[in-house]
Amino acid sequence: MNVLLVYAHPEPRSLNGSLRDFTVQRLASAGHAVQVSDLYAMNWKAALDAQDSLDPPAEARFNPSLDSKRAFENDRQSPDIAREQDKLRWADAVILQFPLWWFSMPAILKGWVERVYAHGFAYGLGEHSASRWGDRYGEGSLAGKRAMLLVTAGGWESHFGPRGIHGPIDDLLFPIHHGVLYYPGFDVLPPFVVYRTGRIDQDRYAGIREKLGARLDALFDTAPIPYRPQNGGAYQIPELTLRADIAPERIGFAAHIV
Amino acid sequence: MNVLLVYAHPEPRSLNGSLRDFTVQRLASAGHAVQVSDLYAMNWKAALDAQDSLDPPAEARFNPSLDSKRAFENDRQSPDIAREQDKLRWADAVILQFPLWWFSMPAILKGWVERVYAHGFAYGLGEHSASRWGDRYGEGSLAGKRAMLLVTAGGWESHFGPRGIHGPIDDLLFPIHHGVLYYPGFDVLPPFVVYRTGRIDQDRYAGIREKLGARLDALFDTAPIPYRPQNGGAYQIPELTLRADIAPERIGFAAHIV
Repeated sequence: MNVLLVYAHPEPRSLNGSLRDFTVQRLASAGHAVQVSDLYAMNWKAALDAQDSLDPPAEARFNPSLDSKRAFENDRQSPDIAREQDKLRWADAVILQFPLWWFSMPAILKGWVERVYAHGFAYGLGEHSASRWGDRYGEGSLAGKRAMLLVTAGGWESHFGPRGIHGPIDDLLFPIHHGVLYYPGFDVLPPFVVYRTGRIDQDRYAGIREKLGARLDALFDTAPIPYRPQNGGAYQIPELTLRADIAPERIGFAAHIV
Repeated sequence: MNVLLVYAHPEPRSLNGSLRDFTVQRLASAGHAVQVSDLYAMNWKAALDAQDSLDPPAEARFNPSLDSKRAFENDRQSPDIAREQDKLRWADAVILQFPLWWFSMPAILKGWVERVYAHGFAYGLGEHSASRWGDRYGEGSLAGKRAMLLVTAGGWESHFGPRGIHGPIDDLLFPIHHGVLYYPGFDVLPPFVVYRTGRIDQDRYAGIREKLGARLDALFDTAPIPYRPQNGGAYQIPELTLRADIAPERIGFAAHIV
């Protein structure tokens, strides 16, 4: 199978660099084809702006969504964007690897999402009617592909637990899992998270590699997080709220998991 | 009072541009001093890297946290970073204004946080002991200042409701409110959110301005979100989990609000 690793750390001689090399080798030795988008090495442009189209509006005001749509439809996107979209089309699975900075992905990776997820490519698809609200959340151009986060965090695992001070890791990652990955159609696998990265000795590192290796070996077998498809009947349209009979006692992120 | 507006939208002739101008005028006419960091206009560098220090490591490997600390302590930070830190020192209140892109802040603003929040400035402060775990979450260099988000979103308000498909807006913003603002000491005010930005006519716009104006008039009177201070007794140290007798039935983000 084809695996795209989108990698966002500025220093190759880091824990993240080691885990990236391990991941590529493990996947390759299992027979997968692997491409890496090393965003810092590529000097990836993080800020979405009018220059993302080869025909930026001269006088008209820049509209991030509509200008993205026009450039995508007319094949006039900045080449760096089009290349990443081609990699996504090629991939059967995508891994986003990053250090958790201020409880989310690094800016350079957020800018990859914003620029590569063009209108017409990752959103703005499908009909809006009484029974459907666009091809998203379980449907979309990336449906049938799998995605997984590989995340490192400086804090302790308990700090990210159900009653930990940072908030539960699953809730911190929900905007990425559900909002960035499930939205355009990915099946989202449980994340692989390494905690307390400042205290990793040889023994811990060996254990991390072993567990990560097992997750990579099972990349195409692991059950995805069972989010509810938007157009599958669980949500009222167009309010897009859960129907009263669906998990009636639940609110918040967890209500969107079967 | 002094107010810093950090603004992240690429097009001045946008809804965000109008709301920014309105905000600056309203605050100024109330007698406040206002500075604006217009990140796109400043061509703000989004990606944190070794060049953020005037003395980047030549041979040694780049460590985002430790290199940031060294540059901050030795007054060898990139001047764009030092300038923003000075603005934060000057400010009595900070407003972060941005369109919600993929359920978080735009990359350029995330990169402002990552680079301006140096080790020693916004984190890595205070003692770690049996009763304290650093000056953070209610304590820190920015304590005594207020912060508020001014956010625009394309989706409907119901889509961001307690059972809305995107997840509740308060939970989507928690990593910013609690993790980016409360962490270094800000008192965090309830956000001002504009929904369904694609459908704003003159009447709606007038109503939005009126409500925003009232929020700006009350900027220094509005009660902050009552997050629990880390070192105030509610958390076990060093696990940093809520003590068993504190809101015993609650988990997740909401448990950290009194």
